[in-house]
Amino acid sequence: MPLRIVLSHTSHPGNIGAAARAMKTMGFADLVLVAPRHFPDPDARAMAAGADDVLAGARVVNTLEAALAECTLAAGFSARGRELSHPPVPLRDAAPGLVGAAAMGTIALVFGNETSGLSNAELSLCQRFVSIPANPAYGSLNLAAAVQVACYELATTSAAHAAPAGGAGTVATGEDIEGLFKRLEECAVESGYLDPARPGRFMERMRRLFARGGLEREEVKLIRGLLAACEKKMRG
Amino acid sequence: MPLRIVLSHTSHPGNIGAAARAMKTMGFADLVLVAPRHFPDPDARAMAAGADDVLAGARVVNTLEAALAECTLAAGFSARGRELSHPPVPLRDAAPGLVGAAAMGTIALVFGNETSGLSNAELSLCQRFVSIPANPAYGSLNLAAAVQVACYELATTSAAHAAPAGGAGTVATGEDIEGLFKRLEECAVESGYLDPARPGRFMERMRRLFARGGLEREEVKLIRGLLAACEKKMRG
Repeated sequence: MPLRIVLSHTSHPGNIGAAARAMKTMGFADLVLVAPRHFPDPDARAMAAGADDVLAGARVVNTLEAALAECTLAAGFSARGRELSHPPVPLRDAAPGLVGAAAMGTIALVFGNETSGLSNAELSLCQRFVSIPANPAYGSLNLAAAVQVACYELATTSAAHAAPAGGAGTVATGEDIEGLFKRLEECAVESGYLDPARPGRFMERMRRLFARGGLEREEVKLIRGLLAACEKKMRG
Repeated sequence: MPLRIVLSHTSHPGNIGAAARAMKTMGFADLVLVAPRHFPDPDARAMAAGADDVLAGARVVNTLEAALAECTLAAGFSARGRELSHPPVPLRDAAPGLVGAAAMGTIALVFGNETSGLSNAELSLCQRFVSIPANPAYGSLNLAAAVQVACYELATTSAAHAAPAGGAGTVATGEDIEGLFKRLEECAVESGYLDPARPGRFMERMRRLFARGGLEREEVKLIRGLLAACEKKMRG
């Protein structure tokens, strides 16, 4: 998966090294540093452990714009509930869409300064805002820990969607999914299982179930096919 | 969720502090240390940052048996593909079962020494073996990074299964799930969608889809109910 980690205005070089290690454990190597305070630095090398190759390959640039060149999508990580034009999406919910976008080109995960996070100007360059849900009383993930969790989530989501043959499954669009739920509801009504006058929480539970695992286009197609066959047979 | 982190024979006290911080960010506070080399230690306090309360509350014991007292289930984390009686389960696949077990009592996640991992004697005290899937060429997660990922995965899985009302959804058993797949296959055949002589990969894809998100008992019940209603109607 073409995934770039962008660390902007990092204060502590040890965090850069630890982030490089976190990336490499999950199979990623494309690291870009925007105006780090100290780099290269012995602390970075010490914390990188066996990921010194990722560190050695890191590019240093002056602006986030430069770091995002060639990227098709940038996801800015935001810890605080700051004033954003739209609220950040929890990492797990955002992951299938990011993995899907990575099928089209390089995606960037952007992390700001340890204390102040990403500036509003930096966030305005990101098409997605993502948060790692954390303890409301203490949400202070170390920078490298946040990179580790983000890389783990994307690697795991990508593996879960990978077709057994090795190709990546294509993530279903919102339109695909709405079409599926419409068909499911029709079928449930047709069978007599769902009373449209008293629908209860059936559809809500189904939405929650499929949101958890994410849906691929091929899966939507298979389930819609089954529902269509059932409806046809039920109507005689 | 009643979750205990057990760190056994940790060499570097800084890792204990960083693990305490990782736990607290995900809302966990029950930390037990088995024979740490240095503890308490200024490095542990420095790395704990704002999680000094978790560190101060940590219990030190001499044996893993003592650390697991009162726990209903222990999951040993194993990085290497060592000789185990059964292979470790990837964290994401193991998480729903662990969250389900936490409804019955305290579960323990057990992490061994930074270099040598858990001993065979320690692993024999764990009912589950769990691995964090990593780069085959460099799977060396820092200890605190592994604790961070494990706590993130369990907190996120627990939240996804939490009923909107606040109670925890009960995870479906293997038996529930097999019953569901049997019914699904019957329904697909009855509708004419699935040709039993040439089943293709429909059932395989459905198994993969539901394995990704995990199933709750209530969801299995709802889908089985719908399938039963469709079958009844199709048979006239």
